Amino acid sequence: TGSPVLMWPGGIRRDHSCSSHRDLERMNMGKSGLRVSCLGLGTWVTFGSQISDEMAENLMAIAYENGVNLFDTAEVYKVYISLVTHCVLFRRSSFVITTKIYWGGQAETERGLSRKHIIEGLRGSLSRLQLDYVDIVFANRNDVNSPMEEIVRAMTFVINQGMAMYWGTSRWSAMEIMEAYSVARQFNLIPPVCEQAEYHYFQRDKVEVQLPELYHKIGQTPSYSDGVPECSRAAMKGYQWLKERVNSEDGRRQLVKIKELHLVADRLGCTAAQLAIAWCLRSEGVSSVLLGVSTTEQLLENLGALRVLSFLFFSSSSYINISIDALLGNKPHSKKELRS
Amino acid sequence: TGSPVLMWPGGIRRDHSCSSHRDLERMNMGKSGLRVSCLGLGTWVTFGSQISDEMAENLMAIAYENGVNLFDTAEVYKVYISLVTHCVLFRRSSFVITTKIYWGGQAETERGLSRKHIIEGLRGSLSRLQLDYVDIVFANRNDVNSPMEEIVRAMTFVINQGMAMYWGTSRWSAMEIMEAYSVARQFNLIPPVCEQAEYHYFQRDKVEVQLPELYHKIGQTPSYSDGVPECSRAAMKGYQWLKERVNSEDGRRQLVKIKELHLVADRLGCTAAQLAIAWCLRSEGVSSVLLGVSTTEQLLENLGALRVLSFLFFSSSSYINISIDALLGNKPHSKKELRS
Amino acid sequence: TGSPVLMWPGGIRRDHSCSSHRDLERMNMGKSGLRVSCLGLGTWVTFGSQISDEMAENLMAIAYENGVNLFDTAEVYKVYISLVTHCVLFRRSSFVITTKIYWGGQAETERGLSRKHIIEGLRGSLSRLQLDYVDIVFANRNDVNSPMEEIVRAMTFVINQGMAMYWGTSRWSAMEIMEAYSVARQFNLIPPVCEQAEYHYFQRDKVEVQLPELYHKIGQTPSYSDGVPECSRAAMKGYQWLKERVNSEDGRRQLVKIKELHLVADRLGCTAAQLAIAWCLRSEGVSSVLLGVSTTEQLLENLGALRVLSFLFFSSSSYINISIDALLGNKPHSKKELRS
Amino acid sequence: TGSPVLMWPGGIRRDHSCSSHRDLERMNMGKSGLRVSCLGLGTWVTFGSQISDEMAENLMAIAYENGVNLFDTAEVYKVYISLVTHCVLFRRSSFVITTKIYWGGQAETERGLSRKHIIEGLRGSLSRLQLDYVDIVFANRNDVNSPMEEIVRAMTFVINQGMAMYWGTSRWSAMEIMEAYSVARQFNLIPPVCEQAEYHYFQRDKVEVQLPELYHKIGQTPSYSDGVPECSRAAMKGYQWLKERVNSEDGRRQLVKIKELHLVADRLGCTAAQLAIAWCLRSEGVSSVLLGVSTTEQLLENLGALRVLSFLFFSSSSYINISIDALLGNKPHSKKELRS
Repeated sequence: TGSPVLMWPGGIRRDHSCSSHRDLERMNMGKSGLRVSCLGLGTWVTFGSQISDEMAENLMAIAYENGVNLFDTAEVYKVYISLVTHCVLFRRSSFVITTKIYWGGQAETERGLSRKHIIEGLRGSLSRLQLDYVDIVFANRNDVNSPMEEIVRAMTFVINQGMAMYWGTSRWSAMEIMEAYSVARQFNLIPPVCEQAEYHYFQRDKVEVQLPELYHKIGQTPSYSDGVPECSRAAMKGYQWLKERVNSEDGRRQLVKIKELHLVADRLGCTAAQLAIAWCLRSEGVSSVLLGVSTTEQLLENLGALRVLSFLFFSSSSYINISIDALLGNKPHSKKELRS
Repeated sequence: TGSPVLMWPGGIRRDHSCSSHRDLERMNMGKSGLRVSCLGLGTWVTFGSQISDEMAENLMAIAYENGVNLFDTAEVYKVYISLVTHCVLFRRSSFVITTKIYWGGQAETERGLSRKHIIEGLRGSLSRLQLDYVDIVFANRNDVNSPMEEIVRAMTFVINQGMAMYWGTSRWSAMEIMEAYSVARQFNLIPPVCEQAEYHYFQRDKVEVQLPELYHKIGQTPSYSDGVPECSRAAMKGYQWLKERVNSEDGRRQLVKIKELHLVADRLGCTAAQLAIAWCLRSEGVSSVLLGVSTTEQLLENLGALRVLSFLFFSSSSYINISIDALLGNKPHSKKELRS
Repeated sequence: TGSPVLMWPGGIRRDHSCSSHRDLERMNMGKSGLRVSCLGLGTWVTFGSQISDEMAENLMAIAYENGVNLFDTAEVYKVYISLVTHCVLFRRSSFVITTKIYWGGQAETERGLSRKHIIEGLRGSLSRLQLDYVDIVFANRNDVNSPMEEIVRAMTFVINQGMAMYWGTSRWSAMEIMEAYSVARQFNLIPPVCEQAEYHYFQRDKVEVQLPELYHKIGQTPSYSDGVPECSRAAMKGYQWLKERVNSEDGRRQLVKIKELHLVADRLGCTAAQLAIAWCLRSEGVSSVLLGVSTTEQLLENLGALRVLSFLFFSSSSYINISIDALLGNKPHSKKELRS
Repeated sequence: TGSPVLMWPGGIRRDHSCSSHRDLERMNMGKSGLRVSCLGLGTWVTFGSQISDEMAENLMAIAYENGVNLFDTAEVYKVYISLVTHCVLFRRSSFVITTKIYWGGQAETERGLSRKHIIEGLRGSLSRLQLDYVDIVFANRNDVNSPMEEIVRAMTFVINQGMAMYWGTSRWSAMEIMEAYSVARQFNLIPPVCEQAEYHYFQRDKVEVQLPELYHKIGQTPSYSDGVPECSRAAMKGYQWLKERVNSEDGRRQLVKIKELHLVADRLGCTAAQLAIAWCLRSEGVSSVLLGVSTTEQLLENLGALRVLSFLFFSSSSYINISIDALLGNKPHSKKELRS
């Protein structure tokens, strides 16, 4: 079965020379100077009420020992990550913790992306996590009721207060990211460094075309403006998305393709989950894929995706890459390609 | 008898889809992303030496249970609001507390809007309220002796120190708000988010014409400048203002109209206070009306205004709206309308 | 004998309507919104090793009771002002404490106006004064070895840290103040609010011509730029300056004039010190004159200068004013006047 | 034998009138207002595991007593400098402590110049040094993986947090310093004040030509932009660099010249190390040379270089200067000189 994956694209300068650390290649998170492992642990999917505290600790320890330095957590879920910080083996400076400002709290003032909720929401998260700061705070979904200037000012405030090192966006459109970036430039505020986006076999347009085009546009603004945000997330969650539409015409067609991809994986000597993760990582702008696992076996299997990546997708024009594109039949084209 | 009301206009995006929370419609406070109930409790009018601590706590608890999340307090009055924060039922993030920098302290350095007084005044309020921060701090009346740059820098300072989330103006002219906004833009400081203004049957021009025109003007400045402040306040205080001029020609004419409005309320099956509050809320730019009550009966009666609003003023061209305009005979016109 | 006086000019909007507070007229300190008494106590001249702690406390208490709300202190002198803060009668927000960053400390890094010395010097002062902040910190003499950008950034830093409310200059040339102002505008830093300058019968040019011309120049820059600094200080210290040159031609001429001024004072029914202080205060741009006294009799006598001011110099073209100008024969002219 | 030396050029205004403090001339560090002794102690070279704690303390005490006020320390080396702060004789404000953000920590997130590593690295240094702040924090080698905006923002953050007074660069190219400076100007952030560069007999181009040209270029930008960074470092470390290439053609040629320089020193009545240090200090842009010594004899000998400087290199066209240039035969020329 496919494992849930999350993905942050954006690391343009994939520095292969630095990839020797404990098996897991390191990349820059979005446009920041922060180096993250290309596989991360998404605690908000992984943990919760489903698994025991003991298992959560086990998973984190194994992930860390295998070179994972990126842990995603969330405002509204039961979190175990504070355990990590008590662990003697882990120095706070040696790993990256991210969290999200969630759109929907209990009271109306605890929702959206008002300055009040961004500040109070992050304060609450830090208190629950028993942390002084997170490395990246994500604005989860844009809030059309909050002016962009208020959002970017509040994010700059929490960074200037030392509550976060960076901020990013999560499930924002290219248009919204562009606005955040412009507002940051207009008022000399801190721009977002990455976007966390859904990305999988059947949802490719944003990560493969829209965000790279956004980057290209911003990259052409005056010198030194390379702090452009660019990320994406793929949530496959054990093909949950697929199960929901399996009865539709589209769903049935996709199911057929999934079965073919299983055969591809078999022939390549890897699992379908490993192939799916490696396929996400092959994309130029992807910094990291967040794993959502609940057993140590699953975790170790998923981490194996990296081994697959190195011999499957060594170049964007590799044989496997082209085969899968042909099999899926949905490779998105940029507007420029369509024109030519 | 009419109840005292206070009013904050400015919530442009009245989002009717979100109105289901505990009976009380939520609106954005001015141009901020902060969602407030359209009726708030104005402690500076309500409390003081007139009512007991017990009654104050009762009123707050009832208001909160009925969906009120906005509580106004003040620098120079005896305040009970700290009681709220000790209440187990209330989370700090679930409601909005505002305060004012008052113009007149005892010593000369404790007056006006100098940087010294803004900072020390707010510090004093927070200490008395036993709070770490208020949500909005209002500059009460403009201080012509303090340069606008100093006022806006000091407000930006208290926000950057985390002592307040936003700042607003109270009883400022449209001209003064415009200057504050321009100074904020010139020096990249934080602009005010709303104006608290007087607004009642016989004082309509500022809220219905001047502030909307100001907003329109600022709204045409370069992109992302929608942080424009816009508010107004109506203090009817049991028709105190009326009693003072009842012997004048104007006063007598207004008294006649008040009596007719009582008849209108009777015919509509609501009280005169409910009609007055609903009439204020019908105005597009109004975010919230502050109630000033001293008994639980009064509070519950006032809260009923919202029920009235929904069937009386469903559109700006409603029959009731037009009737009251005819009765009052003082509907203000914008300069554009007068010209055409 | 003449008493030592210090002077801050700059309060343009002399608001006579607010002058009723405890006998002492209040003015805006330079271009700030801060209201100070037009006579202040200069502890750095007054105190030191010369008078007892008890006398220092007495002087402060008497000054405060008579409406003085401005107390000048200094980095390198023994200070007693902390006593004030322990006094039950005095609220911190009810008076204004200023201090200076002195040019010459023991070590080389403890001199001048480097960022290091401004921050460490002020921290040291606050620690000795047992205060959280001063109201105004003055940069004493400009330091040509420190870039102006560094000075203005450091002053903005201490204000943003809450260590001071405002900053000012002391004994800077109009040219240097202009540069500080321009740098503040260029980098959106906080400009100085006033200049503390020497000002007495025989040193008039800077306070009466140069600083007003500077203000006029800056006043013509784009809108809202009225945060222009303008101040001056007069240190007569019992005619110390005179004693030093009494043997020179100039000195002998000035001594003759001093004697004539004593006669003028006699005829007006006031003391020579009162006349000298009132004469300084008559100048439009002067916010406050700092008194340097060592006995309660001297203090009460000096405070009497204000009574003199009101009937002697009610207008700039008063008879007394013109007489003294004639007697001194050194009225400075602006370049414009000279040209016409 | 030659002693290890480190060098900061940049002090343009060499103020000879202030040179009387305890034998050691004071200069402005780079373009800042900070006055440092022209010889400093480089603890990262001096100490470590090689010498005892007692010797380290001795060296510091002797250096301080002889007028040295500049102490360089480092993030990743064992440091003794905290001992200094416990010393009763030394006030924190009387000396200058610098540290570096090192490129290579253990984990990947502990490397380079990401915001995360700059903040966490400096925090770690301060904790080890038991200091509240350092005077200058250096970015050691530029990190091409971190956007320049992120580096300058992070440096501005640590300065605004009070963790450092200034920031500088170490071993950056003129091009990279130019970019840092431009980014600081573009976003109104704090520019670096100096560069720490290698500088010795056989590595002259950067300090003598490139950095002065950079300064000239930036100096021509609009007024008040004189905060330009300019520094260099010379690490001779007992001719370690020479030993490594002694077998090469170049190495053998340099060895011959070193021997001739020993003869020059003999004839001048000083040691070769003193000549080498004085030769570095003769360069206009050099603020300070960092000494790396391990015995008190070495330290005292090195400090003697200053005595040599005053009679050897009184002017840039001195006889000794010209002789050494002829001997070395490698005087760098600016592009302008080459053209003419």
